[in-house]
This record gives sequence, structure tokens and C-alpha cells, in this order.
Amino acid sequence: MPEPRLQAIEFSKQNNNRFLEELNTFLAIPSISTDSERKDDVLKAANHLVDALKKLSFDKAAVYETKKHPIVFGEKLCGRSNAITVLIYGHYDVQPVDPLDLWKSEPFTPQIREDYLYARGVSDMKGQIWAALKALESIQSAGTLPVNIKCIFEGEEEIGSPNLDSWIAEHVDLLACDVVLNPDTGMLAKDIPTIVYGLRGLAYFEIKVFGPSHDLHSGLYGGVVYNPANALCELIAGMHDKDGRVTLPGFYNRVIPISAEERAQLERLPLGDEVFLLQTGAEQLWGEKGFSAVERIGARPTLDVNGIYSGFIGEGSKTIIPAWSMAKISMRLVPDQDPVEIRESFIKFINDHIPAGLRWEFKEHSSTRASMSNRNSPAIHALAKAQETVWGTPPVFKREGGSVPVVLTMQKQLGVDSVLTGFGLPDDNIHSPNERLHLPTWRRGIETLIHFFYNL
Amino acid sequence: MPEPRLQAIEFSKQNNNRFLEELNTFLAIPSISTDSERKDDVLKAANHLVDALKKLSFDKAAVYETKKHPIVFGEKLCGRSNAITVLIYGHYDVQPVDPLDLWKSEPFTPQIREDYLYARGVSDMKGQIWAALKALESIQSAGTLPVNIKCIFEGEEEIGSPNLDSWIAEHVDLLACDVVLNPDTGMLAKDIPTIVYGLRGLAYFEIKVFGPSHDLHSGLYGGVVYNPANALCELIAGMHDKDGRVTLPGFYNRVIPISAEERAQLERLPLGDEVFLLQTGAEQLWGEKGFSAVERIGARPTLDVNGIYSGFIGEGSKTIIPAWSMAKISMRLVPDQDPVEIRESFIKFINDHIPAGLRWEFKEHSSTRASMSNRNSPAIHALAKAQETVWGTPPVFKREGGSVPVVLTMQKQLGVDSVLTGFGLPDDNIHSPNERLHLPTWRRGIETLIHFFYNL
Repeated sequence: MPEPRLQAIEFSKQNNNRFLEELNTFLAIPSISTDSERKDDVLKAANHLVDALKKLSFDKAAVYETKKHPIVFGEKLCGRSNAITVLIYGHYDVQPVDPLDLWKSEPFTPQIREDYLYARGVSDMKGQIWAALKALESIQSAGTLPVNIKCIFEGEEEIGSPNLDSWIAEHVDLLACDVVLNPDTGMLAKDIPTIVYGLRGLAYFEIKVFGPSHDLHSGLYGGVVYNPANALCELIAGMHDKDGRVTLPGFYNRVIPISAEERAQLERLPLGDEVFLLQTGAEQLWGEKGFSAVERIGARPTLDVNGIYSGFIGEGSKTIIPAWSMAKISMRLVPDQDPVEIRESFIKFINDHIPAGLRWEFKEHSSTRASMSNRNSPAIHALAKAQETVWGTPPVFKREGGSVPVVLTMQKQLGVDSVLTGFGLPDDNIHSPNERLHLPTWRRGIETLIHFFYNL
Repeated sequence: MPEPRLQAIEFSKQNNNRFLEELNTFLAIPSISTDSERKDDVLKAANHLVDALKKLSFDKAAVYETKKHPIVFGEKLCGRSNAITVLIYGHYDVQPVDPLDLWKSEPFTPQIREDYLYARGVSDMKGQIWAALKALESIQSAGTLPVNIKCIFEGEEEIGSPNLDSWIAEHVDLLACDVVLNPDTGMLAKDIPTIVYGLRGLAYFEIKVFGPSHDLHSGLYGGVVYNPANALCELIAGMHDKDGRVTLPGFYNRVIPISAEERAQLERLPLGDEVFLLQTGAEQLWGEKGFSAVERIGARPTLDVNGIYSGFIGEGSKTIIPAWSMAKISMRLVPDQDPVEIRESFIKFINDHIPAGLRWEFKEHSSTRASMSNRNSPAIHALAKAQETVWGTPPVFKREGGSVPVVLTMQKQLGVDSVLTGFGLPDDNIHSPNERLHLPTWRRGIETLIHFFYNL
């Protein structure tokens, strides 16, 4: 290994406790983007990152306003004319914390228990951002950067990035780069470095069904009006058939079948049913007939209720027919499903099936295509080599069930692929109470990124 | 008409303004039984009734403690050995007042606007109790009572009467009577005196469906576990068929069909679809195929979701598969459905249909049979004759969709039927802001009760 690389690795080891303390400060900011009362905290987290970039002597480091939460940008050019440029993407906003009573420690007061650090956003993805920044700091401590680095950190990922695309479109020159590093995915297990080459898209809708003009006494009126809560249940029930397939018209029309080769490759991943049973705590798995669990998660579209509400849900009983009902329903999409077609299909389905006399309203929360990247690019090779150096084993390649819309935006607006990795683990409880980060894996992550930048 | 009766009617007319002022004093006591901070006010209302009974020279008039709010009892025997005994039932507790900002005048500061008196509890049912007491006072002003009178007034009706049944069971001798007068129902319209002869029963359940051990990321796990919110919707959707019939096994087995005679009589009620459209604000009516709206409400059982909840229901979006879901589901029952059988049928339905791998929990909130009273009893004839005297038109007989559990308790514990009437109107806004009472109808109500007691 060349000398600066070794020095950088050594620096990261020596300073790891400080890195962790700094991460704790970052995690203490409750930057919940969906909660309008947390707007100032989201801004605080943005400013925190600007300060961090300035400490790394980044240029142009600043908070850039959008219509809602700001974007943080900064760059550090290495001075060599033929150096490639890596754009690091991250998001500094986090998911809400409810149900709060299930947390064992305060979500914004980070706590270490055994090998894990517990806090909202620690795995998704403040810890990942911090790993990248600390890898850069370690490299700088040993000399100049081997590549040009640009950073873009958004504050709206958890609410569907409503302002990111237009901001990127308006700053194409500023963001010009050769490849994006996006550490917002994770590893299959502690000892299995992972590179994600496929992501599902997302279509997230909200519907409200209206019946009587006010809550009615269910004794005096039970039997004369369609109950909008029952009606909503019937609509949702109709969205799956008995084989677990989604029944929205044309839903599968554009789905690319899994090839025999990919199927064989997915089968080799250490992701048998027992893994999902353990991770989910479910008594039994379920899903679309004819596909394995790993296929269903990565390569098949799904439909889930994310939230539903109607009527009286407090303690005890209240005998009402509710005036309205509401559900949040999202679909995970795979190539080549088109979110616009899916939206039309969804709306048609509701219009075709809603009982006469009920009215409904539609709201769209997210709309993103699925993405697939080239498994043989130089950047992927640089990452794979870095992972093998640190873990002593080559990475596995997998399709992920989640959605990272920015990957598509980068492809479309900047013409570049994203390298998707990350050092979170499947049981990190992201989006759930007791979100956590496995600290030994996080430390290896920092080292991996140091190697990655030198390998490029 | 015999002389004392005419004197009593005249007395009620002469003293009506005083009756109204007294009612206002009663209404000013905020006896909200569900609000623990109003416990003293509930007691104050009870003592107010004891004083009123003592002024009528009732014996044994006292407040009887229960585990929560007290019961008021008093009796006045007329001295004739063959006189029948009427037990007057009422409740002096009222509903909460929120949303307070929708009230046009203070709920506990009664105000007259046009022909209406506005106050919480004025229609449900302090005004009804006061009408009965003032009818008795009017009769006493003209001579002795024609029948024995006992009164039982509870303070827990609006919270489900948790202590009434056991108190009645412990005081069977004290309460011994020939018939119960329960003025807690109302009239179809100002000019339509009404006698209710049927009430629906109630089976009110709550179910919780459990899936994964915690909320899951819907991207990472969408497609491998059964979503308990979707599952709950499917269970609820399965509870009705396309004709609006309830599919719980054996649900209709004991339902007594509507006879041709009753059907013809119900058809004559001024309760066409337009009435229900107006009252509910629904765009279209709905219900079990083959029955009219008035039949569906009074004589057919129904099933409604009263509340449903799962996952994320706040502003914006959260991409989770919820760990659990919950619904409150109630059924209105008709003779001779058995709530115990209905519960078993409900549990069997869920067990038969819940997807494998999901767990569920059951809770029962209410369990009451429907009731029917004999339309040809002497007491019903006495009331019908009284109504015809005052209104100049015979009453209509109707089945009510709601439940009055005390009617069943009286039947079971004391072996007597209840005469259900009352002088409230459908647009009195009971349980809602701006509760009111139509004063000309209330005055006729006092006169009707004077005739009723003489007719017995």
C-alpha cells in the first residue's frame, strides 16, 4: 500500500472516538423533515454540515434555499487536471419517531448499548454521511485528495425530495462529475460487504373517502348509509388477489421478468426465508406466488397500506358511523413500470370500485421509477476492491427493495451512474423505534471509503 | 273528562313559566358523567332531583351511592290497594359539550331562541325528566295520584350505565312495579306523537391484528410479510356481501322476519329516503338489498366499522409496513339474535379468514339483545290515548335503530315491559353542539303524561 493511504487509515483509527462524539452532536438535531414544527431543526442540521465542510476547507460550502428544506453543497478540487470528480450524495433529514413509547432511549439523545449506537437517523443516514466526511478528513490528514470531491446533502429525502430534482436541474454545471457515491443503502450482514445495482421505484398515494356530512349515531343510522370506513377496507381488500398479486389494471404490464441468470445469482445470496423471519419477527412469510422472498423484495412490485384511519380510535367505544376515512397506500415499482401509468391505474381502480354515493380525494406523496446500474463500471470495481481489502471477502451484488429516486435524477440530469453502498445492517430498525448502527461495521465503512477514494 | 284531570291540565298551563324556570336551574348544573372533574356537579344534579321528589312529598327520596355516580330513588304510593305501580326511569347525566366553539350560547346557561330552549341535556333528557315530575305535580295539585309512582334516575347513562344493572338487581323489591315509563326516546316530528316498541341490540367488538414484531421499512420488506393493515381491511371487507348482507356465519339465523302487517305499517311512517338523505347529508342511501330504509334501521341487523387505525396517519408520508392494526366494529342486533352467539360467530369468522402468520386479539365493549314490547299492553293503550287527546291524532308506532339497555334490564330483573316515549325531536342536536328542546312540544308532553297517568 502507498504511504498516504496507510497514514489515512491509521488516522481514522486513532481519531475514531472523536468521530463518534461528533456524530452524536449531529444526531442530537431532530431534523424530521415531515414535521413542520421541526423546520428550524432541519435548517440547524444543514448548517451543521456546512460547518463540517468548511472545516475540511471545502469551497462554496453553503446552505442553498429551496421551497422547503435547504440543500447543502460544497466542493474540494484536488488540483490535478486529469482527476475524476466524485459527487457524494446524502440526506440529513430523518424519519418521524413515533411511536415514541417503544424507544428504549430518547431518539435524539444517542446512546451506546453493546456494539450499537442508538438514535433516529444514525443508520439512515447521518452515520453514513459522517463516515464519508471522516474518510475525507483522514485522507486530508495524510496529504491531498486523490480525486475531486463535491458534496450534495438534501433535507427532504424522507418526504420524497420534492425540491431536489429542480435544484439539480438548475445547478448542472456546479454538480458536474464523473460518478456519484451514494451510501444510502446497506449491507446484507456484518461480514458481507454489499453493492446494490438495482432499486425499486415508489408510487405513494393518499386517499380520503367521504360519506355522510358528519359522524352519525350508528344505532339511529346503521343500515341506511354506506360507511366510508367499511368502503375503504373493501377498496383496499380488492387491491390484491388470492395469489398476492396486485389487481390494479395493467399493474404488471411493463414489469421485466427476472432472467434465468439473475434468478440463479439471487438464489446464491444468503437471504433465505429464515433471514427474513428473523429480521421481521413475523411468524410466517407471505408474498406473490411463484417467487422467492429475495426475488419478491428486489425484482417484483408490491402494494402496502402504510397507514389507515377512520372514526373513533381512543380508549373504549363510541357508536358512530364515521363521516370519512383515510389511507396512505404505496407501491414499490420495478423496471420498467411507469409511476405515471401506475397513478392513472390506481385512480381508475378507485373510480371503478368506489360505492355509489361516496366521494373521494386523491393526494400523491411520491412518484419514482425503479433503477438499475452497470455492475462493471470503474467506480464499482474501485468500491469492490476497497471492500475486499477491508473485509477480506469480495462484495455480493444485490437488488434492493427500497427506492432512491435521486439515483434516477443523477442519471437523467447529470448523465452519471451512482455507486450505491452503505454500512447499515438489515436489523438497524430504520424508520422504526430504536434505530441503531453497528459501530465496528461503521468503522470499517470509514476505512472502506478511504480505500475507495484512493482506488479511483 | 273527569274534573281532577281538567284541573291538573289547567294547573300545568298556568304554571308553565315556573316549570320552565325550574328546568333552567336543573340545566345549569353541568352533570357530564364522563368527565371526572364534573363528579361534584353530577352529585349536585342528583341532589337537585331528591329535593324535587321531596317537594312532591315522595317517600324514601334519597341519593343512593354506587361505585361512580349515584342513583336517585323515591316513591309515592297513592293509597289504593289495587292501584298499579309505574316506575319512571330517567338519567340526569349529560354528554360532554365539545366542540364548545360551535355552540351559539353557553351549554349550561339555557337560552330561548324562537320556540326552542338551548342547553346541554335539555332534550336528552333533563327536559323529559322535568316534564314527568311536573305532570305529577299538576296531578297532585288536583287531588291524589291515580297510580303508585316510583322514580329511578341514574347518572351514568351517557357512559354505558356501568353500575345500574347491579343496583337494580340488589333493589328488586324496592323497584317492584307493573310497568316502566321511559321517556328517553323521541317523536318523529312536531305533529307526530310516537311510541317506540322495538329497539336494536348491540354487539361491539375491538380487534387488533399483529404481523411483524415492529414497523418495517416498506421498501426493504414489502413483498415478504403480510401487512396487518391490508389483512384487517380484507377481514372487514369480507364481512359484507355484494347485497349489503353481513356474512358472519349464522348471523341471520335467529332474525325474526318482518311480517306483512308490520311492513305495511312501517311503510306508512313519514320516513322516506328523502328524510334520511337530509339527516345524514349522504349523497345516496345504501343498505341490505330488499328492505326499505326504515326497515333496515329498525328491523334488520347491521355491521359498521366505528373506528380503524394502523401505521402512520400524520401529515405527509412514512414508508412503513405497520406492526399491527386495530378496528372497532359493532353490530346492531334485532330480535331474536343472541349477542353471545354473535360474538362466537365473529370470532369464528376472524379465525377462519385471518391470513396464516398473523395473530389477533379480541375485546368486547358491549353486548345487548334487541328488545320488543307488546304493542297491545294496557300501558301502551293508555299512552296512545293520551297522545291522541293532546295532539288530535293517534301515535305512530316505530322501531328504533339504537339500543336502550335499561329496557332489557327492567325486563330481566323486574319482569316488566317499558313504555318508550319522549318529547324530543330528531333535530334536537342531542350529543351535538346546540342541543335544544321545542318548548310547545314539551308543554304538550307534560299534558300527555298527565292524561297517561289518569288513563292507566
